[in-house]
Amino acid sequence: MKFALLGAGRIGKVHARAIFGDPDAELAVVYDPDSRAAEAIAGQYGCGIASIDKIAADPAIEAVAICTPTDLHADLIERFARAGKAIFCEKPIDLSLVRVRRCLNVVEQTGAKLMIGFNRRFDPSFAALKAAIDAGEIGAVEMVNITSRDPAPPPVSYVIHSGGIFRDMSIHDFDMAQWLLGEALVAVSAHGAALVDKQIGAAGDYDSVNVLLETASGKQAVVSNSRRATYGYDQRIEALGVKGMMAAENQRPVTIEHADASGFHRPPIYDFFMSRYVAAFAAEIAGFIRMVKDRTAPSPSGQDGLLALAIADAAVRSAAEGRKVTIAEVLDEADQSA
Amino acid sequence: MKFALLGAGRIGKVHARAIFGDPDAELAVVYDPDSRAAEAIAGQYGCGIASIDKIAADPAIEAVAICTPTDLHADLIERFARAGKAIFCEKPIDLSLVRVRRCLNVVEQTGAKLMIGFNRRFDPSFAALKAAIDAGEIGAVEMVNITSRDPAPPPVSYVIHSGGIFRDMSIHDFDMAQWLLGEALVAVSAHGAALVDKQIGAAGDYDSVNVLLETASGKQAVVSNSRRATYGYDQRIEALGVKGMMAAENQRPVTIEHADASGFHRPPIYDFFMSRYVAAFAAEIAGFIRMVKDRTAPSPSGQDGLLALAIADAAVRSAAEGRKVTIAEVLDEADQSA
Amino acid sequence: MKFALLGAGRIGKVHARAIFGDPDAELAVVYDPDSRAAEAIAGQYGCGIASIDKIAADPAIEAVAICTPTDLHADLIERFARAGKAIFCEKPIDLSLVRVRRCLNVVEQTGAKLMIGFNRRFDPSFAALKAAIDAGEIGAVEMVNITSRDPAPPPVSYVIHSGGIFRDMSIHDFDMAQWLLGEALVAVSAHGAALVDKQIGAAGDYDSVNVLLETASGKQAVVSNSRRATYGYDQRIEALGVKGMMAAENQRPVTIEHADASGFHRPPIYDFFMSRYVAAFAAEIAGFIRMVKDRTAPSPSGQDGLLALAIADAAVRSAAEGRKVTIAEVLDEADQSA
Amino acid sequence: MKFALLGAGRIGKVHARAIFGDPDAELAVVYDPDSRAAEAIAGQYGCGIASIDKIAADPAIEAVAICTPTDLHADLIERFARAGKAIFCEKPIDLSLVRVRRCLNVVEQTGAKLMIGFNRRFDPSFAALKAAIDAGEIGAVEMVNITSRDPAPPPVSYVIHSGGIFRDMSIHDFDMAQWLLGEALVAVSAHGAALVDKQIGAAGDYDSVNVLLETASGKQAVVSNSRRATYGYDQRIEALGVKGMMAAENQRPVTIEHADASGFHRPPIYDFFMSRYVAAFAAEIAGFIRMVKDRTAPSPSGQDGLLALAIADAAVRSAAEGRKVTIAEVLDEADQSA
Repeated sequence: MKFALLGAGRIGKVHARAIFGDPDAELAVVYDPDSRAAEAIAGQYGCGIASIDKIAADPAIEAVAICTPTDLHADLIERFARAGKAIFCEKPIDLSLVRVRRCLNVVEQTGAKLMIGFNRRFDPSFAALKAAIDAGEIGAVEMVNITSRDPAPPPVSYVIHSGGIFRDMSIHDFDMAQWLLGEALVAVSAHGAALVDKQIGAAGDYDSVNVLLETASGKQAVVSNSRRATYGYDQRIEALGVKGMMAAENQRPVTIEHADASGFHRPPIYDFFMSRYVAAFAAEIAGFIRMVKDRTAPSPSGQDGLLALAIADAAVRSAAEGRKVTIAEVLDEADQSA
Repeated sequence: MKFALLGAGRIGKVHARAIFGDPDAELAVVYDPDSRAAEAIAGQYGCGIASIDKIAADPAIEAVAICTPTDLHADLIERFARAGKAIFCEKPIDLSLVRVRRCLNVVEQTGAKLMIGFNRRFDPSFAALKAAIDAGEIGAVEMVNITSRDPAPPPVSYVIHSGGIFRDMSIHDFDMAQWLLGEALVAVSAHGAALVDKQIGAAGDYDSVNVLLETASGKQAVVSNSRRATYGYDQRIEALGVKGMMAAENQRPVTIEHADASGFHRPPIYDFFMSRYVAAFAAEIAGFIRMVKDRTAPSPSGQDGLLALAIADAAVRSAAEGRKVTIAEVLDEADQSA
Repeated sequence: MKFALLGAGRIGKVHARAIFGDPDAELAVVYDPDSRAAEAIAGQYGCGIASIDKIAADPAIEAVAICTPTDLHADLIERFARAGKAIFCEKPIDLSLVRVRRCLNVVEQTGAKLMIGFNRRFDPSFAALKAAIDAGEIGAVEMVNITSRDPAPPPVSYVIHSGGIFRDMSIHDFDMAQWLLGEALVAVSAHGAALVDKQIGAAGDYDSVNVLLETASGKQAVVSNSRRATYGYDQRIEALGVKGMMAAENQRPVTIEHADASGFHRPPIYDFFMSRYVAAFAAEIAGFIRMVKDRTAPSPSGQDGLLALAIADAAVRSAAEGRKVTIAEVLDEADQSA
Repeated sequence: MKFALLGAGRIGKVHARAIFGDPDAELAVVYDPDSRAAEAIAGQYGCGIASIDKIAADPAIEAVAICTPTDLHADLIERFARAGKAIFCEKPIDLSLVRVRRCLNVVEQTGAKLMIGFNRRFDPSFAALKAAIDAGEIGAVEMVNITSRDPAPPPVSYVIHSGGIFRDMSIHDFDMAQWLLGEALVAVSAHGAALVDKQIGAAGDYDSVNVLLETASGKQAVVSNSRRATYGYDQRIEALGVKGMMAAENQRPVTIEHADASGFHRPPIYDFFMSRYVAAFAAEIAGFIRMVKDRTAPSPSGQDGLLALAIADAAVRSAAEGRKVTIAEVLDEADQSA
């Protein structure tokens, strides 16, 4: 499957490597307004460089991977949906729920295949955890607890355009919680504070948040996030069910342990999403290709992207207003505006 | 130090063993309205049996351990405070914040020593975690995450008189969260559901709850409780600080691991608080004796008992009303009634 | 069961505590040629002091615990066997296989109950490992690997009278290996070196040894010992069977883990046999009492003590002569001398 | 660097993938007497097919990877040493120490670069363990304990031509032991039995062996091997030093853990060397390329291959004769024959 890569920045490079390394994929062309960034990818992987227009018009290009800044995602999705391409787009579709709704309407009208880059679903351990749940190993799931912490906060300049921690960071965990619970989340209570970097607080955002979520049947989830974890990129999930618990621990580059008079010491866990999720990014592209080939429903779908953003919007509101906020409330408002 | 044990039920037996086993303590007499229960303790540990009046009047009795049903706690505390005894009382002081406030007023007026049985503070691992925090090993604490799950739900008959899961079960975790954060909790958001036993829901209580807590400076805590954990009595704590994280894992009766074609298997963790917290109960009594001997301030104090109950009351209200509830709100109401 | 304790030194104190704490035992009297040592035990546990003659003559004393220096063990066993007491004796019975053989002949003639203090069999984790093997969980055992390391070497003055590392330290592991394999060990190959303390080498002993053992049917065992382990008292066992493996990990006083930029850190394991094997010593005395009451065969028996010493003797010879030595060879020699 | 791959069997495929995936390498041609096997590799990786003569004569080919059956290794090494190629050769160079000696003489005369495929040195965890030792983290190493178990025994037909378990399987561990001790091993004691498959015993080989090794200064090593481990491909190493211990645990495809009423369960470890050592094989080829480019000494060298085989020969003799065998003994005999 011939791919065009749109966006040659940090996450674009991640997907370039995943596409290149997949025996069923070919990285045909790359586009980036910064020609040096595009050339770097082209040089490394021996692919061409093309404009958006050319990519859209090229019948040989079957799929696009959208890795541009967020504010271009929705426009590009609509453009390539109309051009008949299979679309892989990094999360989020947009920071505006209204804009996402409109974009998904276009996707639906064109019948285009759209998959959203919630890469964690493809992490081998998290995927195994999900498979174990689906196989009934812990019975009906009652509670999902997710701990997700970044090693260090991003610069405030990034924070300002990120949509805030709930839409930028927690959104991954919201998608995971709903996916693992197997039922739509209906309400959210969130607490937040700026403990790591006062400037983040001054910019109107938090760097330390905790969120309670619940489904219509009363299933519970907890998401705990911090922008600071000196010990690495902390990514843990546990699911409690009627019959037992299934947990996914952090992953380590090496398995050595050092013992001395002060105790037992293991080296740090992975320190960044790019090293932690190498296998997930590869599996994600493989899953996208399989979905297109097998004509199965995209997963995570555009709707999954919309719902995760709606949960994030509800969390923003809950933290600000000190009350439990329903997902229906934010979705209804978006529908009325869309 | 000569002790009188008040109440020879399940928790009374736990403390009888702890007092008996302490080289600095002597279990002198036991009281229980059920004479057979009292005789059982007396027979096992070779102590006497006495009435409340006799115990209060006996100058040789220096300390009492109150292990009766909750509704007698406050009366007995007041009685023995006036009798000049050092008092160890199981949590909670009372299920009514107003009653607790009045009781503590009596304690204050008499100058009696009162320590409340939040036994977890004395668990060797949790105590080591606290000591590490106090030693600055993780820097200023920003977030405390507590997972506490019972192996199985209590009978509904118990639930009805328990004050509800927040006052009966989560109250331990609220005390731990505040103790570890080292700062008063000011507000609470809680979600709850009855997923394990519908009858618990019918009785107006929950069996699966999650609670967000915060301090005035924005420090965060999360308490996650369930009345069902097939794999044992799940008791974990982690504290995230500026410089790192400190976690306390579950404890195991044995350290064996079995490996076969299906993987690696370890036996269950402790399955009940009476086995899990044997060392904690012993350290608790030792701590009480030391506190009395050294004339230091009781810890956990009556005030700690009051605050934990206030947090529980706020959690009840938050779960019912779908809003963040301040501790001040429930404390102010209690003060006005008291 | 009324006990007399013979020897009030370090290991005597360990057993005094175990006897005192057992609801089925009573520490009646203590004997030690050092009257201050005897008085210390008597004062702490409220027991009497008596001479060996009086203990032997006292019909109320049902059992003796021999915790004297090794060179008195065999004489005392014979003395109390003739006096009709049940005998618990610390390992080894004697450092001379010939003397052990003679002593066991006396025990057999008198029909006395004799149990040897290989305390590790009673450690809850090792006992659980053995029970799992006996329950067939790993199928027929093929290989046992034991790692046993002391935190630091003993003084050379101790080494000189210890019988050497194989008879003093490895002997525990030899007993465990044979017990877990469930079949008599028949041959030994041993390597040894003095790496930790050159003076130990100068005294003709080793401080770092490794031993291969095998049974008649070809089952294998490996014992790895060092007199130095900066990280604590390292006590691990694993058993490999046809169907799987069963391992017992080290045990820890607390379960906390500290994570920071340099990695994940756990406090040291137990640092001494007296803290590591508290539960084992208690279970050992309880097992001795049960054995006497139920009139079951002692385990570990005098014969177990003899065989473990024979394996140690064979290891000494193997390390010195650079050849595989059979247990039969050393046993036969002892039989001829006895 | 243009590579020719010699041998398109199981291990050839492993190296084809590693060469293909390395940005600094190019898999130019493949040779295999079985043309279908060669074509399969050529088709998958888009490389050519060539005869040994052509490869030797082609100046564009800089390096060869010898992955043929063992009995061709020495001839091919000599052939390509004379042709001026850099040579990577799978272990062992030959099963005859005499033949290895002669082959290495040729390598020395030609000045060819030869690296032997002891892939475990390149495993990220074992490499990290070695680096930690070299950095002095555990002080001077005193003891190395290696556990290495295959999931299941090979067919007897393989065993017959394998040179026996010491030369086929333990040889990896002998190389690791010497590498980690940082000092030449001088003597070996070995025990062996056929417990897994009686036919292996009938063929004159063992399937369960344990080996003691020592250096001139008295450093110790233990290698424990079994051809059966139902729980996977068991690969563990620990090194004990003056200042502490460094251990490398088994590695797992996923980090999930399942808890239920029967305990805590983790899925199996890797079940085969091809999955367990994927990263090691990639790092090995990268290390070979770096060695050639930087003109550094090959490591593991031909001499390392010779010594590991000599240790294996000594182990064979020790197990058969029941005595400690020196490496000098077997090396001297080989020198006299060579």
